[in-house]
Order: sequence, then structure tokens, then C-alpha cells
Amino acid sequence: MTYLVNRDRTAEKRKKLGIELGEQQRALRERGIPVIIVMEGWNASGISDAVATLLDGLDPRGFDFHAFGHPNEEEQAHTFLWRFWIRTPSRGRIAIFARSWYSRLLAEELHGVDCPERVNRTIRSVRTFEQQLAEDGTLVLKFFLQISRDEQRRRLLARERDTLTSWLITRNDWDFHRQYDAYAPLSRRMITETDTEENPWCVVDADDTRSAVMEVLASVVDRLRDRLALPDRCRPLGDLPPISPPSPVDPTKGEHTVDRQEYDAALSDCQARLRACQYSLFKRQVPLVIVYEGWDAAGKGGSIKRLVQPMNPRGYSVVPVSRPNDDELAHHYLWRFYRRFPPAGDVRVFDRSWYGRVLVERVEGFATEQEWRRAYGEINEMERSFVESGGGIVKFWLEIDSETQLRRFKEREEDPLKQWKITEEDWRNREKRDQYEEAVREMLARTSTSHAPWTVIDSRNKPYARLRAQRAVIKYVEKLI
Amino acid sequence: MTYLVNRDRTAEKRKKLGIELGEQQRALRERGIPVIIVMEGWNASGISDAVATLLDGLDPRGFDFHAFGHPNEEEQAHTFLWRFWIRTPSRGRIAIFARSWYSRLLAEELHGVDCPERVNRTIRSVRTFEQQLAEDGTLVLKFFLQISRDEQRRRLLARERDTLTSWLITRNDWDFHRQYDAYAPLSRRMITETDTEENPWCVVDADDTRSAVMEVLASVVDRLRDRLALPDRCRPLGDLPPISPPSPVDPTKGEHTVDRQEYDAALSDCQARLRACQYSLFKRQVPLVIVYEGWDAAGKGGSIKRLVQPMNPRGYSVVPVSRPNDDELAHHYLWRFYRRFPPAGDVRVFDRSWYGRVLVERVEGFATEQEWRRAYGEINEMERSFVESGGGIVKFWLEIDSETQLRRFKEREEDPLKQWKITEEDWRNREKRDQYEEAVREMLARTSTSHAPWTVIDSRNKPYARLRAQRAVIKYVEKLI
Repeated sequence: MTYLVNRDRTAEKRKKLGIELGEQQRALRERGIPVIIVMEGWNASGISDAVATLLDGLDPRGFDFHAFGHPNEEEQAHTFLWRFWIRTPSRGRIAIFARSWYSRLLAEELHGVDCPERVNRTIRSVRTFEQQLAEDGTLVLKFFLQISRDEQRRRLLARERDTLTSWLITRNDWDFHRQYDAYAPLSRRMITETDTEENPWCVVDADDTRSAVMEVLASVVDRLRDRLALPDRCRPLGDLPPISPPSPVDPTKGEHTVDRQEYDAALSDCQARLRACQYSLFKRQVPLVIVYEGWDAAGKGGSIKRLVQPMNPRGYSVVPVSRPNDDELAHHYLWRFYRRFPPAGDVRVFDRSWYGRVLVERVEGFATEQEWRRAYGEINEMERSFVESGGGIVKFWLEIDSETQLRRFKEREEDPLKQWKITEEDWRNREKRDQYEEAVREMLARTSTSHAPWTVIDSRNKPYARLRAQRAVIKYVEKLI
Repeated sequence: MTYLVNRDRTAEKRKKLGIELGEQQRALRERGIPVIIVMEGWNASGISDAVATLLDGLDPRGFDFHAFGHPNEEEQAHTFLWRFWIRTPSRGRIAIFARSWYSRLLAEELHGVDCPERVNRTIRSVRTFEQQLAEDGTLVLKFFLQISRDEQRRRLLARERDTLTSWLITRNDWDFHRQYDAYAPLSRRMITETDTEENPWCVVDADDTRSAVMEVLASVVDRLRDRLALPDRCRPLGDLPPISPPSPVDPTKGEHTVDRQEYDAALSDCQARLRACQYSLFKRQVPLVIVYEGWDAAGKGGSIKRLVQPMNPRGYSVVPVSRPNDDELAHHYLWRFYRRFPPAGDVRVFDRSWYGRVLVERVEGFATEQEWRRAYGEINEMERSFVESGGGIVKFWLEIDSETQLRRFKEREEDPLKQWKITEEDWRNREKRDQYEEAVREMLARTSTSHAPWTVIDSRNKPYARLRAQRAVIKYVEKLI
């Protein structure tokens, strides 16, 4: 943590820093380094002035500015980090956040949520969030503008006297002001507990706005200079704990089946219950994520179709996951999934998912070893925070053996209605079965957590597998709500 | 307009239609034809059932489903078609809208907005919106599910009795039901006035849900079959009215200048007023669009920088416009601009804009002649609807002659701080000055409308041009609010 105190700087110096910042921006763009500048501080501490000074030196083509106030309806319907996640900058861009997850932390502490466990959880989520960004190459610069109680009072009064700004000062601002002494230790705690070696805070004495904004500008330029002087680093591989169960899937065991008559009766019973489940989720405003992963031709599509058939289309959607597009590739790989997470009361069925990182991206080499190894922890964290904030997750691995897959591929090729379902790529993937099997085993072992366990479904018999998935969802939802 | 009455259809037939729909979806994807299916109807008329039947036949990879209820905060802060525009499907995708702009039309009529002029305006906007989509190749299928008053009553009562759904029936539903007879003629009028040859309505007798959803499914399949049987048509060029003023720019006239001292004083006065303007816009929740177009090196960047310098960064943003990305190219070309229009109270400065369609895209051949000729009307309509819904637009063309441009290009090449600003492309564009001049003249003539006139600024002297732009914004805003 750095504490900045006022030093005088001339307009000359400011201009020079602005020019250097512009150059750094172009260098960051070329190197593809994303930057987040977080501006936090007391009410009326001059956040807008500091932001305006930074923007002044930047080319508007390369930055995004986001001011965070009270979350809107849509944002409230997601986990609390969601609105920040979806606004993380793509490679080479600078995002400036006026207020951020920290203000929310403070608000939680002071506004009735008197639950230390919840605050600790939030602090942990914030640290992990920043760490994940750092590990993905994002530079996070955090500034806190500090003003004294007297100075805050002076500024609020001055704004009230100015006809341009008087209507902006509300009772709320004065309520906050009166609680200054209660906030002070909390803001210190928040800063201390989220001040890490990788993402340190910079606390700025802002009683003099003019020098404070200069300090911020100079500090941003310094930090960027340091970052640009470093080569694009390759982190060492982290140690992963050993995994014990080699595979929960045993293809030699007898196939589970279900006969036609039994299936029809059970299906209609399950579908009625699924309909009820969806209504309950909506009524209680609980979001549900259902993940489908599995071998090609394991029957994901057919299973999803029957799962959602009884549901009201207003309350569910199926998210097909394939190759990321350019914009998605330019972000943290979880970014595109955060954007598609269900709001409160909604069901999202992912037809393939973020697990692609440790399956196809691992096997095909689209992710480096370091990246896919890191992904287990990142995924567990994402799922944990979703569940802890009240959401539900059901994950299916649809298992079929190699022979069953071959038979289905051939059937598809012969069926004029299904030919389009099978491509060259499916055949190519098939040849790498061994590598995929290893990846699947490791994925199941490392991401079967207490908050989001995997359900492996023997899918050699489609009717059986479909009922099995539906029953698992019903059981999960009925327990959850 | 088609009226569909109940005909019995077997499950066999339904399955066949579902398969055909799936095939059509793949054909649409290959041909890149976007489709919007609008499902409207009385409360409890079975919209969800009809949607579920359609979805059943579709591959989730190729459709989007949007249910429109009461607009949320963000949507309310935009023009009323905004939330539909930004959800129009990209080429080859099918979007299903459960309720749409029509429900809004009805809501406006019945909920106190007793202003026939406003309703007429909205109807006109809706017709134009659909027409623009059709001209861009989108197929819009509109269904209205009709049930009798008695049937509606029966269904509401049935839902109240069902424990799954009873809590969903509110007083609001009964209020609507009691007004059935008042709604009936309005919904007829709405349908009649928006029933065009290009985008006809299909009204479905839905007292029997089972046959109604079959009718919808069959009708969708019929319409798609008809569309797919047509070649991808090339429309004839529309007639544009002749334009009279050859050019509002006369480079032979004396250059406007301003001396240094005068500039400094005027700049600080203007910037104080701009700050006040921004506060007023925010206070009154009026959104403002400022468009900057002009020759390369005419000074757009510097002018924008000084314009926004005094503003609070929370209330403005600069939108740099360059090449569209893949996703943007796959939509109507106005789609990416709709997404960036300012919400209420916000200022958006467009550094280049939708006018690229009739400038660079025209000259470089990225748009066909038919496309860029159509664009004049589309742009005028977009700006008109924005202004009529309470927004403001200021449009600048920054004019410099060819010699001034050449001098600035050379200066940029020699200045190490500005070298990055000049590229091969700038030199290439310069060679096409004549073609660009013709495009600029036509743009100015055809899109200087009473609601959004162009301001042409002599930009040979940068300080003069900057003040001119600031004063134009101030004058416009002070008049507007």
C-alpha cells in the first residue's frame, strides 16, 4: 500500500505526464495488456476530477469509463461481482471505474447486513476476483481518495451553495457525512484486507484536490511504466493437489436401460414435476444453472430438449457454447459465461460450458498448460460464489463408450435428417479419445465440489439417460427450495 | 392480413412440421436471412404455448427468445423502439419475441396517454421500423392470438385454481380483463394500421389453444417456405428527390480566425457554460447526441477533447467509430449505433458515426448503391424518432480544404508525438477527395432536417473551429431545455 501526500506539481509537469500516459496507452494496446483503474474515496473527495484528469491524456478510442452507483434491477438480479465482471476491459484497453466493488463492501457493512461471515465472504470473493484478473494479465490500479471530515463538510456546503450542483446534494450525502467516524475504521479495514502484493492500494490525501489529482496521474504513469518495462511474463505452473479417483465411469459395467412403456409414464411424470420446479424457482427468485457436458453424440441435445419441453419459455433459455468470437477471445475466458449467467428466477441450460477450457482447449492446445491448470480453481470459485449468493448448479457429464459413439456417428451419417449434425471435426475429436479421457477424469475429480458436484450419467441408453437427468434436476431443485 | 381458424391437426402432422422447421432454420442460416417472429395476443391467449411449440422444432444454437414485459429502468431511459432494435437478430438467426412494440402501443393508448398525435407518431415509427428491417432482408412474421372475453375469464379462473400458477394472476390481469371491450377496437385498429403488404399480420382464433399453436406452427413453416423459395432479391434503386444546394462549403472564402488571447478568454467562458449545460441535461434527464464528422486531420479529436474537458465524466462518453466487427456486420448497420445511443440525461459524442454509411462505405464500395441510398431515409428516421421522444442532436461537419489537409498530414509525419495518428489509409483516402466531396455534399443536403440540421464548421483555424463547435452546442442546449 502506498500513501501519497501532497507535493506541488506544475501545469508543465501535468502536460508531460498526460503525453506520457497517451504513449503508454498505445504501448498497452500493442502489447494487449488490459488495465483497470479503480477510483474510490469518500463522498465529494474529488473522484470525478481525478477521472477527468486521467481521461484528458487518453485517446477515447482505447478506454472505457464506468461509474458505479446503486445497482440497477438487472444487476441486483445477479451476484454482486457480476456487473464488474461483465465490464472488465478486453486486451489492450483501459477501463476506469468510478467506485467499484469496494463501495459495495462498505455499503453492506453499514446498511443493516450485520453478518460478519457474509462480509468475510465478500472480501474473499473480491481478493479472488482481482487475483484472477491479475493472473490473466490485467493490471489493476486501485486509488482511494481520503478527505477529512471537516473538508467533506466544507465541500458539501459549497456544493449546496452552487446552483449548478445544489440539487445533487441529498439527505443521503449528509447521512453519510454524519457517519464519517463510523466509516473510517471500516474503510481502513476494507483497504487493508484487500491490499495484496499483486494488487496494492494507493491511498491519496485529497484535502487538496489539485495536488491529489496530480498524484493520481503521476502514480498511474509510474505503475504503467513499471508494467511496460516488464516482459510479458509466463508464470510458473502452480501445483495441483493429486487426484485419487481415476474415473467414476466404468464402461464395462452393464448398461442401464428403461423400457418404452416405463419411459413414457415416467417422462410425463417428470415433466409435470419439472414444470412445478420452474415455477418454484421463479416464485422464490432462485437462478439455476444446468451444465451439459459429454462426448459427441452422447445425446446432450435430445436430453436438453426433453428437459426444457415442459418449461415456460419466459423463464429458461438454452445457451449453446461453441468457439468464442473475437471480442470474447480478447477477455478473460470466463467473461462470456458471466455475461450469460441467469438472473434471479431464471433457468439457463448450458449446452457445453466453461469446462471447454479444461477439455477441448486443453486437448487441442487452445489454452496453455498454465491456463487450463489455473482454470480448475477459477471455475470452482465462480461456481462457489454463485451458489453462496443463492443460486443453484447441476452439472452433467454424459458418458458413452467409444463403440457406442462410433455406432451413433454412423447412424447420423446415414440419416438424411441428422447428417448435418456430424462433421469432420467430430471424427477428428474421436481420434483423440485417450487424451480427452484423461482430461475428463481430471475435470471430474478437480471440479466436483461440495457446492457443485458432477452427476455422471451412463448415456448408452438414451431414454434412461434422459430420465436420469430430469430426475437429478428435480431432486436438486426440490431440495434447494 | 390472414385470419386463421381452427382446423384439426394430428400429432403426426405436428412432428412433420417441426422437422421441416428445423430444416428451414438451417437453410436460413446458410442463406443469412434473419427472421423475427412476433407473438402477440390477449392475456392468457396461449402465447407461451405457441412459443414452446415453435422452440420445440428449432435448434437452440440458432434462435434467440425475448419476452417483453414492462420496460426496465435502462429501457425506459431510451426511445421506445430501442429495446427492440438492440435485440434484432443477426443474419441467419431467428428471434422470437413474446409480446413486442404492439403491446406498448396498446398500453400507451389505454394508460392515460390520451394524445392521438403521439399514438399516430408511434404507429408511424413502428411501420418504419418494420419496413427498415424488411428492406435489410429481415423477415418479420406477426401473430396475434385472439380469444373471447368468456374464454379469457375461464382461463384466468383456471390459473387461479391451479396452485402452480395462482400467485401469477394479479389484480392487473383482472383489470385488463374488465376492459376487454375497450381493448378490442384498439387492438383491431393497431393491427389494421400496421398490416402492410411487406409485413402482414396473422390473426389466430385461439379459443382452442391446441389448434391455435398448430396454426401458428403451420403458418410459420408456410411463410418460411415461401421466403426460401425466393432468390435473394436485389431491390430496384429508389428515387431520391433532387438536391439543390451544391455545397454549403466554400473554401475560397476568407478563413475564420481567432487570436490567442481572445481564444483563451472565450474558451474558459464556453467551458463554464458547457458544464452548466451538462448539469441541466442531467437534471432534466434529456439525452444529447453530438456527431462529429469531417475530413481526416480536420481537428475532430482536439475539438472533442476541449468540448468534454469541463464535463463530469459520469455523464458523457465519447464513442469512437471505426470498422464494424463481425457481430456488427451481421446486423442492420444502424444496430451498433442504437446500442450506443445515450440514455436519459447522458451526453454521447460520436467521433465519426452512422454517416460512415454514406461516406466511406459509399466511396469504398463497402455498401451497395441501393444500401447507401436507402440510408439517408433510415438515418433521418432514426434521428427524428430520437428527437421526437425528447432527445437532442447536434451534428458537425468539420471542413478543411485539400491544401490545409496536406499541410497537416505532413506536420503529423514530422511530429514524433503525432506520427501514430497518420496511416497509409489516410493518404489513400486523400486521393479520392473528389468522390468524397460529392458524398459529403449529398449527405449534407439529404440529412439536414428540421429536427437535426448539420452545422458546417470552417476548420482551417483550429481555435476558431473549436469555439464554434462549443458555442453551437451551448446554443442548442440552452434552447432545448
